[in-house]
Amino acid sequence: MNIKMLVYILGKVLLIEGVLMILPVFCGLFYGEREIIYYAALALIYVVAGCLISLMKPKNMTIFIKDGCVATALSWIVLSVCGCIPFMLTQEIPSFTDAMFETASGFTTTGASILTNVEALSHTSLLWRSLTHWIGGMGVLVFLLAVVPMTGGSNMNLMRAESPGPSVGKIVPKVRSTAKMLYLIYLFITVLEIVILFACGMPLFDSICSAFGTAGTGGFGIKNDSFTSYAPHIQWIVAVFMIMFGMNFNFYYFITTRQISKAFKISEVRVYLIIVAVVSAIIGFSVYGIYGNVEETARHSLFQVATAMTTTGFATTDFDLWPSVAKFLLVSVMFIGACAGSTGGGIKVSRFQIMFKMIKREVESYIHPKTVKKLHIDGKTIDADVEHSVALYFFIYLVIFVGSLFIVSFEGHDLITLFTSVTATLNNIGPGLALVGPTQNYSFFSDISKWVFIFDMLAGRLELLPVIVFLTPATYKGIVKKARGIRG
Amino acid sequence: MNIKMLVYILGKVLLIEGVLMILPVFCGLFYGEREIIYYAALALIYVVAGCLISLMKPKNMTIFIKDGCVATALSWIVLSVCGCIPFMLTQEIPSFTDAMFETASGFTTTGASILTNVEALSHTSLLWRSLTHWIGGMGVLVFLLAVVPMTGGSNMNLMRAESPGPSVGKIVPKVRSTAKMLYLIYLFITVLEIVILFACGMPLFDSICSAFGTAGTGGFGIKNDSFTSYAPHIQWIVAVFMIMFGMNFNFYYFITTRQISKAFKISEVRVYLIIVAVVSAIIGFSVYGIYGNVEETARHSLFQVATAMTTTGFATTDFDLWPSVAKFLLVSVMFIGACAGSTGGGIKVSRFQIMFKMIKREVESYIHPKTVKKLHIDGKTIDADVEHSVALYFFIYLVIFVGSLFIVSFEGHDLITLFTSVTATLNNIGPGLALVGPTQNYSFFSDISKWVFIFDMLAGRLELLPVIVFLTPATYKGIVKKARGIRG
Repeated sequence: MNIKMLVYILGKVLLIEGVLMILPVFCGLFYGEREIIYYAALALIYVVAGCLISLMKPKNMTIFIKDGCVATALSWIVLSVCGCIPFMLTQEIPSFTDAMFETASGFTTTGASILTNVEALSHTSLLWRSLTHWIGGMGVLVFLLAVVPMTGGSNMNLMRAESPGPSVGKIVPKVRSTAKMLYLIYLFITVLEIVILFACGMPLFDSICSAFGTAGTGGFGIKNDSFTSYAPHIQWIVAVFMIMFGMNFNFYYFITTRQISKAFKISEVRVYLIIVAVVSAIIGFSVYGIYGNVEETARHSLFQVATAMTTTGFATTDFDLWPSVAKFLLVSVMFIGACAGSTGGGIKVSRFQIMFKMIKREVESYIHPKTVKKLHIDGKTIDADVEHSVALYFFIYLVIFVGSLFIVSFEGHDLITLFTSVTATLNNIGPGLALVGPTQNYSFFSDISKWVFIFDMLAGRLELLPVIVFLTPATYKGIVKKARGIRG
Repeated sequence: MNIKMLVYILGKVLLIEGVLMILPVFCGLFYGEREIIYYAALALIYVVAGCLISLMKPKNMTIFIKDGCVATALSWIVLSVCGCIPFMLTQEIPSFTDAMFETASGFTTTGASILTNVEALSHTSLLWRSLTHWIGGMGVLVFLLAVVPMTGGSNMNLMRAESPGPSVGKIVPKVRSTAKMLYLIYLFITVLEIVILFACGMPLFDSICSAFGTAGTGGFGIKNDSFTSYAPHIQWIVAVFMIMFGMNFNFYYFITTRQISKAFKISEVRVYLIIVAVVSAIIGFSVYGIYGNVEETARHSLFQVATAMTTTGFATTDFDLWPSVAKFLLVSVMFIGACAGSTGGGIKVSRFQIMFKMIKREVESYIHPKTVKKLHIDGKTIDADVEHSVALYFFIYLVIFVGSLFIVSFEGHDLITLFTSVTATLNNIGPGLALVGPTQNYSFFSDISKWVFIFDMLAGRLELLPVIVFLTPATYKGIVKKARGIRG
């Protein structure tokens, strides 16, 4: 294992976090809040420490896939731990477990909160909280790749470990250019949302926080009732942006390079939009009786489907009161999740596409036993490796899901609460149903359960395997041997 | 497609059903019930029709895997339709949908009932109802294979379509001998249970019906409260027999051939027994407060775990009132299910074993990228084909599960009822939680939902793919072309 490289990466991550922490300081200055002392001090410490650590640039910058997994998992742990300290210092979230839950929830773009009164937070902390979504959405290592030059396959191993989806598509041949491109698109659409929201009458602070929450498909709101009290046209705008951030970013790359027809030929994007439309329509019919008018029904249906499928987690209505079929569909799209290569969570549309293609081929193999067919998506052949990894993804997902549910079930809450709390954290959504419904929060869980959720949020955001590899003792065999060798 | 062969098989199936229907006639004669007229008349019709149809023995007895699927699905449909007619004629279950639900539930060894008062049924019908479990447990086609000689690969294709588990192990080289062996073991343990229950003071009729329900891991009781009011020692005996029938029958084959060490080396059996023990223990701790004494706690825990994991569906207590962790564990073992090569349902222990081995190898491949390892169970290599089919099994399972849940969710019942009703039918268990809990029944569902459940029960019993192949239009392409050719 390339430990020097690992330390170097962690130093850079700390540096980035320190730099980003300056943003809430400016915000706090504007509002004249005393909380900025802590943020400023921490920003300074992180920047200095990060610089010092990453001064020692390793000669060998190669990292293998195993190292990539460890680097990714550690980076996210460092991010969360260092990111939660301001909440503790300001006494806004004094408990370490709670602060860690909130911050991990932020970076992993989950949006589950332990706060019963969000509005009591300072503007400084509110902005930091929403900013964690924005950083976590596209990924801190992808950002690192965009700014730090690395050798050959290394960066791919980092990007593969952090990016969502069954196979990482490099948009352009160079990983570094891909990472830059992704962040530019991401930044552009975020700014676009801020401008539109502000132009439509939302206060600037609200616009910025909401856009961060939407862009990262996070879901932290700055109001206790999430988006319920915002004007209908604001809700429509946010719904559309949620759907946009759940789309495969290849779509935007094709759009910016004027390959419009190619953009609309991405089957994952089409399937994703069809699911959003169909599920919204069915839910619309089932809840029409509750709202009684077409606009309101359409708005709440589309918003809630967008929030569930992109795994954002905002809410404009208490969907826990909806009929069974609507609740069932919402939970279903939570599992499906957004597109690969988006900022959204969940299992991802393309994994389901591959799954259905595999089923189809299996059935055909029973009917015509001698034909061996390769699978294709958008004209590209799907490797047997990718098929295999999709199957394994579902397996590992199942094991983590059931394992988490087992530990959490000792809490003794009703099964719907337990089931949807794991669903909402592992898929990086935020709210679930019953006791973790959109009007509730996670504060009542025990510390043990909260740590299970923190694990689930990280595992979900990093797409399971990096976290598993990070936790497997065999990963560190070489190091222990080396250390023994030195001692002996 | 070998249609002549298909018709021949269906004829034989009808003949077998007719012959078996004579058993309730004898029972009804003993109790002097008028219902026997219908059973006797139907038995006669089925035997005569079955003989006539299977008189036309086809010259070409080869059937391919596709034909095997269609034959299996059709046989089970014929079995259920012909088996439900007596319930309609006796007016005990006048509705066709209900009678079909009850009979499919019987043959598929589900044990879900639409009857609110089981005790109102005649002894004749009760025996027939329990007998369907016994026939369905080991499979009617396996029985057919045991008595009818067929050529080479054909019988394997039939057996593969009907037998539970990821890969059909032939115990002995010849399929026919394997089928005979299985039925002999099955018959022996069933008779053993009848004798023991009778010797322990259970009435003979109750002993026979209970043994049929246990052997097929079915779950139809002849009392409204299932096993709640039977004596504790009876409950212990039934619990042990349920566990026995959930074990891979290879175990008994090794025992009968005095290969004791080999029998206990079957890892699936060991894993299965460990799960039963561990889950019972955890549940025991969590429900001790309810019963307050060790024997009762142990008995109810073990009985309910056995009934859930073997997918039988008897009950000695209302586990719907248990704490969340106990309910969660029961539902979990319902999904795991019994061993492959047993009469139990569910996904099967060995599929999970293969799944875990695949996960382990995947994680290792991240740590040591260059090693390619084959998987092994009990020293035997697992084919890539089997791995593949296990993954596909989970996928198809997921699709059927979610699809069923979607249709049923229009009923508007609570999500726990909906979720566990699909769980209980697709895994061939019987009772679920909430409105389909152990003290409830399925009568309140609409006809549409009942047909969804009938589909799920058949799909679950036949292990999904045969039913999917049967329903795929492409399966019948050749026939349509042929028919057109004849016309043209």
